[in-house]
Amino acid sequence: MAVQTVAPAADTPTVDLGPAVALSCRECGARSPLGPSFACPECFGPLEIAYDLPSGDPEALRKQIEAGPTNIWRYAPLLPVPADVASLPGLNPGWTKLVRADNLAAELGVTGGLHIKDDSGNPTHSFKDRVVAIAVQAARTFGFTTLSCSSTGNLAGAVGAAAARAGFRSCVFIPHDLEAGKVVMAAVYGGELVAIEGSYDDVNRFCSELIGDPVGEGWGFVNVNLRPYYAEGSKTLAYEICEQLGWRLPDQIVIPVASGSQLTKIDKGLKELIALGLVEEKPYRIFAAQATGCSPVAAAYKAGHDVVRPVKPDTIAKSLAIGNPADGPYVLDIARRTGGAVEDVSDAEVVDAIKLLARTEGIFAETAGGVTVGVLRKLLEKGLLDPAAETVVLNTGDGLKTLDAVAGTGPTATIRPTLASFREAGLA
Amino acid sequence: MAVQTVAPAADTPTVDLGPAVALSCRECGARSPLGPSFACPECFGPLEIAYDLPSGDPEALRKQIEAGPTNIWRYAPLLPVPADVASLPGLNPGWTKLVRADNLAAELGVTGGLHIKDDSGNPTHSFKDRVVAIAVQAARTFGFTTLSCSSTGNLAGAVGAAAARAGFRSCVFIPHDLEAGKVVMAAVYGGELVAIEGSYDDVNRFCSELIGDPVGEGWGFVNVNLRPYYAEGSKTLAYEICEQLGWRLPDQIVIPVASGSQLTKIDKGLKELIALGLVEEKPYRIFAAQATGCSPVAAAYKAGHDVVRPVKPDTIAKSLAIGNPADGPYVLDIARRTGGAVEDVSDAEVVDAIKLLARTEGIFAETAGGVTVGVLRKLLEKGLLDPAAETVVLNTGDGLKTLDAVAGTGPTATIRPTLASFREAGLA
Ligand SMILES: [Zn+2]
Ligand SMILES: [Zn+2]
Repeated sequence: MAVQTVAPAADTPTVDLGPAVALSCRECGARSPLGPSFACPECFGPLEIAYDLPSGDPEALRKQIEAGPTNIWRYAPLLPVPADVASLPGLNPGWTKLVRADNLAAELGVTGGLHIKDDSGNPTHSFKDRVVAIAVQAARTFGFTTLSCSSTGNLAGAVGAAAARAGFRSCVFIPHDLEAGKVVMAAVYGGELVAIEGSYDDVNRFCSELIGDPVGEGWGFVNVNLRPYYAEGSKTLAYEICEQLGWRLPDQIVIPVASGSQLTKIDKGLKELIALGLVEEKPYRIFAAQATGCSPVAAAYKAGHDVVRPVKPDTIAKSLAIGNPADGPYVLDIARRTGGAVEDVSDAEVVDAIKLLARTEGIFAETAGGVTVGVLRKLLEKGLLDPAAETVVLNTGDGLKTLDAVAGTGPTATIRPTLASFREAGLA
Repeated sequence: MAVQTVAPAADTPTVDLGPAVALSCRECGARSPLGPSFACPECFGPLEIAYDLPSGDPEALRKQIEAGPTNIWRYAPLLPVPADVASLPGLNPGWTKLVRADNLAAELGVTGGLHIKDDSGNPTHSFKDRVVAIAVQAARTFGFTTLSCSSTGNLAGAVGAAAARAGFRSCVFIPHDLEAGKVVMAAVYGGELVAIEGSYDDVNRFCSELIGDPVGEGWGFVNVNLRPYYAEGSKTLAYEICEQLGWRLPDQIVIPVASGSQLTKIDKGLKELIALGLVEEKPYRIFAAQATGCSPVAAAYKAGHDVVRPVKPDTIAKSLAIGNPADGPYVLDIARRTGGAVEDVSDAEVVDAIKLLARTEGIFAETAGGVTVGVLRKLLEKGLLDPAAETVVLNTGDGLKTLDAVAGTGPTATIRPTLASFREAGLA
């Protein structure tokens, strides 16, 4: 691609990524052309996608979406992807269940309607399939032949699987001391899997070096040089929640925070639906959830600060363990602006919440789901969340991936195969 | 329920299970009323559901189905469930992806179109959610308050989760020496989990004893006294495959065989679709897949026998490890009648096939999926399956549940976080 330092006033993209017209700096607003860039050429601020979204007839757009496939590509008109994306080979994530959680609501005293958006139903069982699916389209458009990422687990599997199906080479970087199960998940799709002797931070730093080196030419790092595209995948959570509610905004949403990107993009998605006339405007409140062992945003929120001070993560919620969250300040802003809050729960509370959700709704969440359900409970106890308002809680991953968190769970009794032994155990 | 030894000629069910009107013996044809029975009162043969299916206008039925929810309840008019089933609390499984597997097809030389029906997308990540969902409706109808089963893994999780969400007590029986991961999955939903000192056969025998004992009163064992209902859940695989193909029969289907119930019910479902006018009649061939370490049906097929001789299972495909498959003779009959075959693959071939599917399509299958994909490859090699005909292969579970099978899979390299180290490893 030709490099342009400043985009023309009238955006004229030279690639077909549907309604996406340019990259736009979230700090200074400067625009640059669509390409594999992640930092503003003017101020080094983070870039995001600028769109020319369909305007005019919301009814026609709604009908078009409803007639689309039962995956994220039903929202192709609102995403940085070519219009024929649904016909290209991919994992086609999304359209996961919005589960009406009446049992959990009764237990917690929520009367306004409680729903779990359960993203464990995605192809590799985490919300990462959504963001990777968008990054794959950008990689294809920019002519990359290798898909890559740094990862501590969920992302590695999502990239490996998507690359396999979409016909990319993949090369994924992980810290050398990952749990065996996560290594298998990352390796089974047959791409290159490189273990790095060092921490996740070392892995990240190495990936940035690779991008600047000739060796990394032709490589799309989904969470680095494709990040502006990748991040947009989280908007689909907002779209699906509202459509599944019958094209209606919920009153309250509880969202986990790692880098904070998911939360900011869900907010962006909700605002787009309002602007497009697909949902009626009304106030909504966004709540951010962290594990206490990695809660820099919650700490800043509670202290009334605008600046997020990095921490060294120490929590079982490893998929949320980002000590220096890039979008932390935006999360603070959104929680405060919408009348939400940022709250955190201990590892013990995470485990309790995983079991609570499993026992009441039959959903086995990964630790990140324990964080959101635990925070829901804590917000209710503190009176920060309105039990009479309609509430959606995100579960972004699958309990099968974080079995260790509930490894103590076992049989209620061990008996001999006789009725007498059964009676003795007091189970009859 | 009142006990009737012989049903009236005009079936008049006293319970509302939709189009289900009676139980019918698969051996002697005798009918008995809908109830928690599993053996014919005349000849002790297996019972199945007799229906009064909607006749007349296939177009209207097709439209009704297409307007239904994106789960198995879209087929409620063809299942033994009340008409309002979709509004009752449940896990709502089904409508899993039918994945067009062009990469795998190219690798194996299939030219007629190859699809994977990927049931790892169900709520607890196996096809068992389908059968349990139907059993739950029967349990509710017959007034049971406890859901139970004997299980070696997938079923335990499916019953625990479904019971939690639908408001039943659950009590699940497992052998005492199950893998830790499966025990966690079975226990996390908070029901009673009883480990039995003995083999899976001992667990089964004990469950039959419990049903006959006053202790077991009010207990619905999904795979024993609710089996006729439970088994019908597999018909939904046939319905979904045909609807997802555009209301068309595939030419060939490869189905795993444990008890053989799933295969016989898929055949039943296909025949119903033809009878209802929902698909055009044409020949289809059904292929049965077993692991060599538990292949009594394949052995009988190859020897030209009608009788299936029990074996002692020894295979990594534990979810298929039923040495004395109840529906084995029916499987033989269907494979022979439709021009299919019964084939088996070794554990090494299962592992290879898991990796092949992951590498080509980004689908991480459990061992049972390795069995069907491995058998697909073998059937092609032997010239028993037509590469130019449209083929569907079932994956009935998730690789995360049988990680041990591919535990040897790991990083392609371990390096220091430097470009020099990366180059040395030969990955650049
Ligand atoms: Zn800028
Ligand atoms: Zn009979």
